[in-house]
Amino acid sequence: MTTKDFGIREGEVTAELPAEPDAALYFIGRIHTPWKERKDCPKNARESDAICTLEIDARWAPGLKEVETCTHLVVLYWMDKSPRNLVLQVPGRYGVPRGTFALRSPARPNPVAMSVVKLVAVDGNRLSVIGLDCLDGTPLIDIKPYFASTDSVPDAVVGWHARK
Amino acid sequence: MTTKDFGIREGEVTAELPAEPDAALYFIGRIHTPWKERKDCPKNARESDAICTLEIDARWAPGLKEVETCTHLVVLYWMDKSPRNLVLQVPGRYGVPRGTFALRSPARPNPVAMSVVKLVAVDGNRLSVIGLDCLDGTPLIDIKPYFASTDSVPDAVVGWHARK
Repeated sequence: MTTKDFGIREGEVTAELPAEPDAALYFIGRIHTPWKERKDCPKNARESDAICTLEIDARWAPGLKEVETCTHLVVLYWMDKSPRNLVLQVPGRYGVPRGTFALRSPARPNPVAMSVVKLVAVDGNRLSVIGLDCLDGTPLIDIKPYFASTDSVPDAVVGWHARK
Repeated sequence: MTTKDFGIREGEVTAELPAEPDAALYFIGRIHTPWKERKDCPKNARESDAICTLEIDARWAPGLKEVETCTHLVVLYWMDKSPRNLVLQVPGRYGVPRGTFALRSPARPNPVAMSVVKLVAVDGNRLSVIGLDCLDGTPLIDIKPYFASTDSVPDAVVGWHARK
């Protein structure tokens, strides 16, 4: 067997997906970014200060009341172009297998990405933000206020990354 | 009409839910906490240093490789006991309506909660962590490494909260 046939790299391991899902999501809007193809996306969000736009569906727009008082937001979005069955992955830059839950790769059982963004402007149902690295048109799942008291840990370390 | 009939408070506003969901989630495990009822849960995660356990299903356990090198993790979980149609909410402590996306309330279109936790120990498919405030048995959706470089913003402000 060649792993190439399955679109995975040597050292990568997959799990069998469950037969049935357990819960369902509604897309609440879309994310507009400058990046139309994956190769154009920044490697991580700190590499770019591009202003992106969160466009919230009219149905949910009243939920934005007082969001403008926040300097930073937590954004959850759906990385729908990635395989969901990888448990060990070999990121191209590092070349060694690591567990999916030790990586921020979009390939994961539930491809819900989390980014912390800086809020630049609010115009009706559109939020201008800095700090995203996803494809244009990515489905939006949630927006939350970022509380430094619970969400900020300046001295946190990802050991495998610090060792590289 | 009395808002009580609908289980919502005065000043709260709901949206009609979409007819169909857009994506599906797999629960990847369960969270074990000391809190069996909502009234027992800490008001926020910094109020408690209780050690909770993330128990990952065997199917996904290989995905934990190198998670033990992380001091902190992002945990996503499913708050399945909350209404999904509230767009304006009146949190009991404050008494004024605010938008769902300006709150960390579990009542939101997609009840995916995000917590930053401190990793205390790893034992096979069980992670001991500090920093959760959810009910015992809460379904787990994702675990990610916490990168201070992109996830930590010590000076972030939630204006409505700072003014309280």
